[in-house]
Amino acid sequence: MIRLFVDAHLAAGARISPTPEQAHYLTRVMRLGLDAPLLLFNGRDGEWRARLAETGRRGCVLAIEALVRPQAQVPDVDLVIALVKRPRLETIVEKAAELGARRVRLAVTARTNADRANLARLAAIAAEAAEQTGRLDVPAILAPEPLATILAAMAAEDRRLMFCDEAGDAPPAAAALAGAPPAPWAVLIGPEGGFSPAERETIRAAPFATPVSLGRRILRADTAAITALCLWQSALGDWRGLEVGGPAGQVTGGTGGD
Amino acid sequence: MIRLFVDAHLAAGARISPTPEQAHYLTRVMRLGLDAPLLLFNGRDGEWRARLAETGRRGCVLAIEALVRPQAQVPDVDLVIALVKRPRLETIVEKAAELGARRVRLAVTARTNADRANLARLAAIAAEAAEQTGRLDVPAILAPEPLATILAAMAAEDRRLMFCDEAGDAPPAAAALAGAPPAPWAVLIGPEGGFSPAERETIRAAPFATPVSLGRRILRADTAAITALCLWQSALGDWRGLEVGGPAGQVTGGTGGD
Repeated sequence: MIRLFVDAHLAAGARISPTPEQAHYLTRVMRLGLDAPLLLFNGRDGEWRARLAETGRRGCVLAIEALVRPQAQVPDVDLVIALVKRPRLETIVEKAAELGARRVRLAVTARTNADRANLARLAAIAAEAAEQTGRLDVPAILAPEPLATILAAMAAEDRRLMFCDEAGDAPPAAAALAGAPPAPWAVLIGPEGGFSPAERETIRAAPFATPVSLGRRILRADTAAITALCLWQSALGDWRGLEVGGPAGQVTGGTGGD
Repeated sequence: MIRLFVDAHLAAGARISPTPEQAHYLTRVMRLGLDAPLLLFNGRDGEWRARLAETGRRGCVLAIEALVRPQAQVPDVDLVIALVKRPRLETIVEKAAELGARRVRLAVTARTNADRANLARLAAIAAEAAEQTGRLDVPAILAPEPLATILAAMAAEDRRLMFCDEAGDAPPAAAALAGAPPAPWAVLIGPEGGFSPAERETIRAAPFATPVSLGRRILRADTAAITALCLWQSALGDWRGLEVGGPAGQVTGGTGGD
């Protein structure tokens, strides 16, 4: 069933108008007919069953019927990723949504060649991935900040940092995270050229940082980000199977549509 | 330094001609000058330092100098992936090379819409990813086969199967693989629509299959493949840190070029 992320307040009996793009998608691309069911979420009010109640030239109206799942949050883990080229950055944002990151922070580092990103497009990619993956929120994409600013935020938030260290002397991620304190955490991935020696020293000296290795091979930035988030979720997040519950068919690890 | 996968036999003093595409890449794209160093591997003879010894209109000649690393193999793990749409299939092959799969087997399943793939293009993607990731071999990409044929091969090879089961009642991958027997293994990922109930029954009934869950969210096929390989390498493969060795700077988990 189609799932849409909307901004409106969701409650039984409410009627909402999706964006023109969403209305186009529902009525033209997916060709939903009147009364067709769909699912809505807004990151606050849980997941609701709704129906297509009106269609017209200028959009459509969705009638909210009943709560399907109460609001739930992904674990409090941020992905901190140095700005990389656009195609890989977009892949990383899509995968961060699928793998249950709560936020994506974009870092400007010594070896980063860019200092800006198309945040609106990245937010749209995050929303679409969240719709497909079944989560009830959309990861926030924060504007690029210098690495030092982000590290200061980590300290202020009492957030631990999984530092994916290229230098090869860090322990494997699974071993380094075993028995580590719970969330809040962040996963930090460097730029294509790696962190500068000074940056690496600063990160490793931070009392909240846990250096980890991601195996024996050189990974592209997108592979490193996916891998690190997956190992974090497996060790400390909601992949451990401790909290599995909810309706069958929604709590799955299978492959979704393309 | 540039790493190239070549077909020729590699030995000290040998001179080889790379393919026209490789010659173009070296001399036109990367603009290597005479005597510029590079690294070569062929999946059999280890990694060798070489130099650009001659260039001409029709190609170039590389002089093989010295062995840098003896041949080593990735763990004996196959990725078995149902045929999915081309862009995601190409991503999967690239990531399988980075994450150290020894082979990629393409499966035709009940809900697979295709029965062929551009194997030459997939092999080129695998070779390029292997060049960048630092491994000394290139994963073989096998022609599509029916799922039943692949399962029969698993049994004949005494190969265990990590079955990424969408149904949600399998234990988390890390728990399911803890203490499991060592390689040879295969990781099995279904098509976008999932395995049919009959296929799922057959796989789960196989004595060599270990069903695992990949977390609480629905994953796209490429995300599922990357995640599953990563968790296998972490639990049973060469990410465990038991075998780390080799020259510093080559055994890393950092991010490579783009």
